Amino acid sequence: MGTNLTTPVWFMRQAGRSLPEYRATKGTTNILDAIAEPELAAKITMQPVERYGVDAAVLYSDIIVPVNSIGFGIEIEAGIGPVTKSPYRSERDLTRLEGFDPFVSTPYVLETIRLLKSRLEVPLIGFAGAPFTVASYLIEGRPTRTFEATKAMMYGDGETFKRLMERLSEITYLSLKGQIEAGVDAVQIFDSWVGNLSVYEYANFVAPHVRYVVERVKELNVPIIHFGTNTTHLLGEFAKIPTDGVSLENRSSIPEAIEILGSDRAIQGNLDPILCLTNEQVMIDGAKRVLLESRAAKRYVFNLGHGVLPSTDPIMLEKLVKFVHENGPELRS
Amino acid sequence: MGTNLTTPVWFMRQAGRSLPEYRATKGTTNILDAIAEPELAAKITMQPVERYGVDAAVLYSDIIVPVNSIGFGIEIEAGIGPVTKSPYRSERDLTRLEGFDPFVSTPYVLETIRLLKSRLEVPLIGFAGAPFTVASYLIEGRPTRTFEATKAMMYGDGETFKRLMERLSEITYLSLKGQIEAGVDAVQIFDSWVGNLSVYEYANFVAPHVRYVVERVKELNVPIIHFGTNTTHLLGEFAKIPTDGVSLENRSSIPEAIEILGSDRAIQGNLDPILCLTNEQVMIDGAKRVLLESRAAKRYVFNLGHGVLPSTDPIMLEKLVKFVHENGPELRS
Repeated sequence: MGTNLTTPVWFMRQAGRSLPEYRATKGTTNILDAIAEPELAAKITMQPVERYGVDAAVLYSDIIVPVNSIGFGIEIEAGIGPVTKSPYRSERDLTRLEGFDPFVSTPYVLETIRLLKSRLEVPLIGFAGAPFTVASYLIEGRPTRTFEATKAMMYGDGETFKRLMERLSEITYLSLKGQIEAGVDAVQIFDSWVGNLSVYEYANFVAPHVRYVVERVKELNVPIIHFGTNTTHLLGEFAKIPTDGVSLENRSSIPEAIEILGSDRAIQGNLDPILCLTNEQVMIDGAKRVLLESRAAKRYVFNLGHGVLPSTDPIMLEKLVKFVHENGPELRS
Repeated sequence: MGTNLTTPVWFMRQAGRSLPEYRATKGTTNILDAIAEPELAAKITMQPVERYGVDAAVLYSDIIVPVNSIGFGIEIEAGIGPVTKSPYRSERDLTRLEGFDPFVSTPYVLETIRLLKSRLEVPLIGFAGAPFTVASYLIEGRPTRTFEATKAMMYGDGETFKRLMERLSEITYLSLKGQIEAGVDAVQIFDSWVGNLSVYEYANFVAPHVRYVVERVKELNVPIIHFGTNTTHLLGEFAKIPTDGVSLENRSSIPEAIEILGSDRAIQGNLDPILCLTNEQVMIDGAKRVLLESRAAKRYVFNLGHGVLPSTDPIMLEKLVKFVHENGPELRS
């Protein structure tokens, strides 16, 4: 049975395109430029906290910020996502991934965190992309649905793939370490695309690197949460990695996930964000189901099964936060 | 341990855009028009059997053929997929889904089957779309990645959704029955998009309808195979439906799937079709892994984890068939 006295709630991508105040604040500034301006990034980070009364702020940043900052040559194209003209092809490209130091490479991220810590009354969550997801952008050169080049390298040139994963694991760790030293209260690693891999591929080509990052971050004594969309089939592998919490995608059954992950791990998620596009009744019924299912988790944080969709009406999320705050403890008891 | 003396192999979407002889034969004819010409459809069906020496032919058809044939008003737009200008919105739209009789509505499909049965030396596999996947096209009006309208109806207007699923289940059954009476040796139901649903959604809104179709088809005494992409998390639900075989998507682990599905069910799949785009060594290594993993299945049919990708080089598939035929029995023993 749940033991939270309250049910905390936050949303992945709670800051961003679904908020009119975000669109007004950011205007046409490129996202990477907005992230590099601490006052602007701090303001954007606080917007959903002020509007929704969520129980955590999520640093306004992007998973490609570290590799962008050291000059790999990757940008974010509006409407597309991360794009590079020279994808990672061989170990020679490792020279383009050298020298990441959060204090030198991304001082603006740390400054944003310091600004936020002096202003926020709720915890601040930092994050980084997990090595596979970042690797897939570097190898494919742009968002993909097939991961053809990534799989060709993974299977056909395993050493080159492994060297890239090792380098990105180090960068991921250093990025999280910098954020933690600057003051974030928890971190989440986003392995957004890893759900496209099979259990075999995850266990053999990815899991050791995620484990490395998690084990090193745990030495820093802040909670680390693990998330990837489309990963219900990988929960057995996620269970072997010593994270503090797992954020469940919307297709998972919470009771089944707890059986796999163990009841000592915090569970987060997993309301289908699509339901926030339908109507209030459907969304609230869904939230009720999630809260009832979460009873088997000792610690539970309400969240969506993936990020807020850009077309979501903020009024729906306001209602959702209110519902969870008012009904969470009772439904979970 | 496997008991097949040979390892049969066929590919989902083995006929189609990846074959130059298909592109030459079909030309610019719309796919629905090509399907409606028995001589043409029979020729296309036989092309991959002749080229690859696969152990089954797959009827050249499409899952929207039945609903198109009774005038729902759905077409296939090249490069997009099934599109309708008037999506299914209320029970009144059920009048657009009346009167399907395979012998009257799609006599050309049955004629194609009869032509093929007189020409083929290998079994012929018929198929139909499962109710959810067809419903999603009718409700959304076009291919979607979010299934927003479908989920809104499923949760918000359950009765309307259920009536549609019941009607489509009847159509699916009748379509399969017609194909079986015309001579197909086995059938496969394609629930292509159901992997986007959660376990809860599948169990509550979809499974009873699939079960209805499967139970009725089983009275006709031909094997029925069940397939959907992205469905590893749903295998526990698939296990409850009395199919003769399950075709596994590429992310599944075959041994884990057998544990869930039982060793009496035939297993099909699950080589990642992306590997056929990489290089021969990577593809053959993948095939070897799949064959070794399949040893726990009594009956196993080699196939891909989803359809042949249009950019696949047919020479790769020729090599794959040869490899499976030459090495399957030994690797599985």
